[in-house]
Amino acid sequence: MSLAPLLKPNSIAIIGASSTPTRVGGIPLHLLKDAGFKNLYPVNPKNTEIAGIPCYPDIESIQKPVDLVLLAISANDTLPYLERCHAVGVKAAVVFAAGFAETNEPEGIALQDELTAFAKRTGMRISGPNCMGNANFVDGIFTTFGTSFRPGDPAGNVALLTQSGNMCASMYRMARREGVAFSHVINTGNEADVEFSDYLNFLADDPDTTAVLCYIEALRNGPRFLEAAAAFKAKGKLLAVYKVGTSEKGADAAASHTAALAGNNKAYEAAFTQGGVARAHELSTLTDLAYLHGFGARIKGSASAIISVSGAGGAILADALSLYNADVPEFPEAVKAKLRESIPAYGMVANPVDVTGNLVNNNDFLFDAMKLAVDPENIDVIIAYLPGYFLDRAIPQLERLANSTDKSIVVIDTFAVADRAAVEKLGIAYFDDFDRAARAIAIYGAWRKEEVTGVESLAAKATWPELPAGEGALSEAQAKHVLEQFGVPVVEDAVTQTVEEARAAAERIGYPLVLKLVSPDVAHKTEYGVIKLGLKSADEVAEAFEDVMAKAKALPNVRIEGITLEPMLAGGVELLVGVTKDPVFGWMLTVGLGGVWTELMKDVSHRLLPVNEVGALEMLRSLKGFGLMDGFRGQPKADVESAARAIAALSVAALATEPRVREIEVNPLLVLPQGQGAVAVDALVIFDEVADAAQ
Amino acid sequence: MSLAPLLKPNSIAIIGASSTPTRVGGIPLHLLKDAGFKNLYPVNPKNTEIAGIPCYPDIESIQKPVDLVLLAISANDTLPYLERCHAVGVKAAVVFAAGFAETNEPEGIALQDELTAFAKRTGMRISGPNCMGNANFVDGIFTTFGTSFRPGDPAGNVALLTQSGNMCASMYRMARREGVAFSHVINTGNEADVEFSDYLNFLADDPDTTAVLCYIEALRNGPRFLEAAAAFKAKGKLLAVYKVGTSEKGADAAASHTAALAGNNKAYEAAFTQGGVARAHELSTLTDLAYLHGFGARIKGSASAIISVSGAGGAILADALSLYNADVPEFPEAVKAKLRESIPAYGMVANPVDVTGNLVNNNDFLFDAMKLAVDPENIDVIIAYLPGYFLDRAIPQLERLANSTDKSIVVIDTFAVADRAAVEKLGIAYFDDFDRAARAIAIYGAWRKEEVTGVESLAAKATWPELPAGEGALSEAQAKHVLEQFGVPVVEDAVTQTVEEARAAAERIGYPLVLKLVSPDVAHKTEYGVIKLGLKSADEVAEAFEDVMAKAKALPNVRIEGITLEPMLAGGVELLVGVTKDPVFGWMLTVGLGGVWTELMKDVSHRLLPVNEVGALEMLRSLKGFGLMDGFRGQPKADVESAARAIAALSVAALATEPRVREIEVNPLLVLPQGQGAVAVDALVIFDEVADAAQ
Repeated sequence: MSLAPLLKPNSIAIIGASSTPTRVGGIPLHLLKDAGFKNLYPVNPKNTEIAGIPCYPDIESIQKPVDLVLLAISANDTLPYLERCHAVGVKAAVVFAAGFAETNEPEGIALQDELTAFAKRTGMRISGPNCMGNANFVDGIFTTFGTSFRPGDPAGNVALLTQSGNMCASMYRMARREGVAFSHVINTGNEADVEFSDYLNFLADDPDTTAVLCYIEALRNGPRFLEAAAAFKAKGKLLAVYKVGTSEKGADAAASHTAALAGNNKAYEAAFTQGGVARAHELSTLTDLAYLHGFGARIKGSASAIISVSGAGGAILADALSLYNADVPEFPEAVKAKLRESIPAYGMVANPVDVTGNLVNNNDFLFDAMKLAVDPENIDVIIAYLPGYFLDRAIPQLERLANSTDKSIVVIDTFAVADRAAVEKLGIAYFDDFDRAARAIAIYGAWRKEEVTGVESLAAKATWPELPAGEGALSEAQAKHVLEQFGVPVVEDAVTQTVEEARAAAERIGYPLVLKLVSPDVAHKTEYGVIKLGLKSADEVAEAFEDVMAKAKALPNVRIEGITLEPMLAGGVELLVGVTKDPVFGWMLTVGLGGVWTELMKDVSHRLLPVNEVGALEMLRSLKGFGLMDGFRGQPKADVESAARAIAALSVAALATEPRVREIEVNPLLVLPQGQGAVAVDALVIFDEVADAAQ
Repeated sequence: MSLAPLLKPNSIAIIGASSTPTRVGGIPLHLLKDAGFKNLYPVNPKNTEIAGIPCYPDIESIQKPVDLVLLAISANDTLPYLERCHAVGVKAAVVFAAGFAETNEPEGIALQDELTAFAKRTGMRISGPNCMGNANFVDGIFTTFGTSFRPGDPAGNVALLTQSGNMCASMYRMARREGVAFSHVINTGNEADVEFSDYLNFLADDPDTTAVLCYIEALRNGPRFLEAAAAFKAKGKLLAVYKVGTSEKGADAAASHTAALAGNNKAYEAAFTQGGVARAHELSTLTDLAYLHGFGARIKGSASAIISVSGAGGAILADALSLYNADVPEFPEAVKAKLRESIPAYGMVANPVDVTGNLVNNNDFLFDAMKLAVDPENIDVIIAYLPGYFLDRAIPQLERLANSTDKSIVVIDTFAVADRAAVEKLGIAYFDDFDRAARAIAIYGAWRKEEVTGVESLAAKATWPELPAGEGALSEAQAKHVLEQFGVPVVEDAVTQTVEEARAAAERIGYPLVLKLVSPDVAHKTEYGVIKLGLKSADEVAEAFEDVMAKAKALPNVRIEGITLEPMLAGGVELLVGVTKDPVFGWMLTVGLGGVWTELMKDVSHRLLPVNEVGALEMLRSLKGFGLMDGFRGQPKADVESAARAIAALSVAALATEPRVREIEVNPLLVLPQGQGAVAVDALVIFDEVADAAQ
């Protein structure tokens, strides 16, 4: 059901309305009154009138349509009153009260479950509980007890969506200090009914909103967030997020605060990247993204031309842009030559351009230089470092520039004394700090540039066999067999039960060979001596068979399903490819080079499923150790295309599992020299007793 | 000679003084007059009086002692006038004029060389040329044409030392906005005479200065900078730097701007670390370090206790501190239990502490909680997140806390509306941004904690042989022989000239063997097939000898000095150890694991020489791949102590070279299992035709 009654109500009742303007039941009443909201009904049996507005003893007495109720009553009184509101046709509610799941106590959790069930049953849309409420600046509707939002504040087209009341107030004030104005400000609270992505979907459709700033502690539904992100991307609206909990301590604190499943940081990172979300790592950057977005329609990327009155300023900006992965492209020779006609030897023409302090006072020259710098095709944005009076004097040239280019212009004034308003009036963004400007331009430009191509999940060509009861793992042979059905190439193997079978299979496969125990109960075969490498003859195979069988029989509680023989492949690069289940986002794929690369260097790439061949190839290329597959030191290039196909096949297999499967790992996926393919040498499938609740 | 006449002059003459208050010769005159400076002598033949002060036609007419002259005249007029100033006993000069080495043109470079020679000859101390001049706020002496500095500005104990006039003005204004006040502000210009470290040495001794903020483009003398850094560290004064040019584009721009040798970024990084310098990567951080230093005497490290009125604030701070490598230690159980007595289940007690918005209004409780959090031994600083009115109301408790602990207190108010002055009066630092606070505390605390232990250069036990004329390299055998003299263990080898000698040597050394050509002209032996590995018998040795000799003879211009035999060592970990010469800092040591680790992962550690065994061990342990030497996957631990000794010996050898040696490399240094030592298997010494000019 639409969130309009919640966020754009025509009529509001305040249950527990208070005449004291600083109380939870008084603040929204006074805000709404000051904002001139018409159909406002205070409810409190102790009053007949509050602040000049008629007050009702209960919801039933109002006798007019009520879209939304604000509940300024205790947690225990909430549900009974909501039932009464539902009975008279109220469509939405904001529950301010704490005392629900955030208490981490059984009683509060049960109360919240009841609230969720009520919302599902009745269709009433409920904001909170344990929330500070919302503010709609476009329509002047203040359904909050927050004191940071004022009816006099200007409306803008940025929305603020936060999972913390305090951060809601902080972010609002921080952004206001930079001149950012808002359409909606929303504090989600415990999200018992309306959850984070519901608000996002509303804002994606809201014509008054072109950008959303999110403060996130924990998402309750990853896939829905990604759907909402896709809607934002499709409409060219900015979805910018700050996600707390990137450190262990921070994650603990956020989890404790939110009482939601934390999820894996890597999964969030993958989701934000794959979802085309602009991610800020500081609240100030989140603010700056919104500010830049106000001027941002022209910014197509982050490749920057730098014009500076000081060599130092140019160098500092070039450093900062590079740090945040924004390009500072070299100008074409013709542009450099043209600039050099006026700029002396001690100024720079390459990019950054140092026009030198002397020349900036030459009106025509500054314009010409900026025009030369902004025009090359590989430039997305021009950044002019013009501190203080340099900027004030350059307003006419900047105006000419703004009128003669459709690219974006940003100015930096570290003196912080120039006429900022005069600059902004020209559609030019103003910063007083190099680092913040560079960071915002880099992130914003990258977001603008990024194409999020939908990754269709390939149709599965096979189905999974029924899993045994209880928790456990498939044997290596079973696991490889299943994956092979889904298109993952696996090493040819033969499962044997007797020495004679083993001898015969060995002669058929050829040497050298690997011989291994087949058992669902032994994951690490080397530790137990039940794997033998490099066997070169039938006699060696026979001896190894006897030895492994004897060792396996000596292990307690180990089921022996046979002994397998495989060719021992030489050369190639070993990959680790695995999927694990994130409680928020579902299947996450991890790809890395084996051994020290993964264990010591943490050189791995993560993506959420589905991942197709193109995505798998990008993951491989993003590894620092990719060079090992790319002809390092004259070694043959590895067959990365085949590796990517195998990884995509694993993705298909994972998505086709039943919910009890928790993890699939291929280790190693041996990537042979180009043209020779890639094969899964070992595989592991782990499953739980029952399906994960988060599924 | 002392810089007192330059930075604390008793009398000043302004050559080219102007009555126009906005001209280079007018600005300092008016600043000095406004500041009430007494012995001020404008010099200009066109005037008899400027701004009410008697004006002299020339320096000779003053007839009173003049400590300092400010030259507001052209580059070409500068030297002749300086001669006249010297003749009448002037001790120091500030040369504002551009037109010297920064022009990158021969004429300007020659003019600057003359200026340098003049200063050396006369002992006059010269600031600039091409500088904006200096300001001494303690004594009210403004010898600058900069317009950012005002006689009314408060004096403080922070000095600002910059290589860019524009950054001088920018940094000054940025820091003033945060309330930082200055003792001296200095713009060094081209540093023809007084160079960066001269100013640093003056400020290290200056009783009015306790901290220096530096903006650096390129140092001209690395070792002198490190000496000055040591003086700061010894006195407990803060030396904080921002160094531009960390990116390729930025380095190009800085080099072009400064006209000084760029030096290697890694060498600067090593120098700042080894010198105990606090390094900021943003100008705003540099400002924040100065601000924090004003409250910093109590800060002994960066381990932080976090108290927050909001779970979100605590989590954000924990993330930010972790990002910048500051610790957020877990509290002792007793502290947690005590906090839990008052904090409900939904608040946190671990660190961060979430006292929750309700409890913060309980005066006694907030004090008790802060006291409990700050007292544990492993806590250096307490950070309280108290936005807006929370902070205003907490002033009494903060005052009690400040009076009951000698640790540092920092508050954060993201609302930016609380009474900042009231907080600062208590000796408590105030920030309105999480990220800036965390970054400053992390860097400042780490700086406070760091002990810089002087590394004495060990006495060399040997001397280098005379190098051949011209540029070239020592043969591997020669290189290894030299290094062995200095204590680097090398693989036993035998140089042979005939097949018979080779057979005899092989029988003596034992098998398997490596056989290599000895020639100063072939650095990469594998490429030319003049190295043979794994020889297992005298016959194989004889065959390999003939083959290598034949190949060597076929190579043009290759001197053949023999064929060497060495044992082929199995096992162990291969290190690359090399020293190269940085134009600014001299010898820089690089240590890394061989092959992919260095080439693909850039997993290397750098330090400036000297490096002793302790330092070498720290370098090894800092490698990401150190695990490979530390028993990774059950392999034997490597003899890292022996490796460290070998590295220290290489350091001694490098420092004893004659200046023509440019590079020494041991690749690999084979580190055998513990107790078995480390040996240089191959070594390379490269020398130039003539000594490096930078030496």
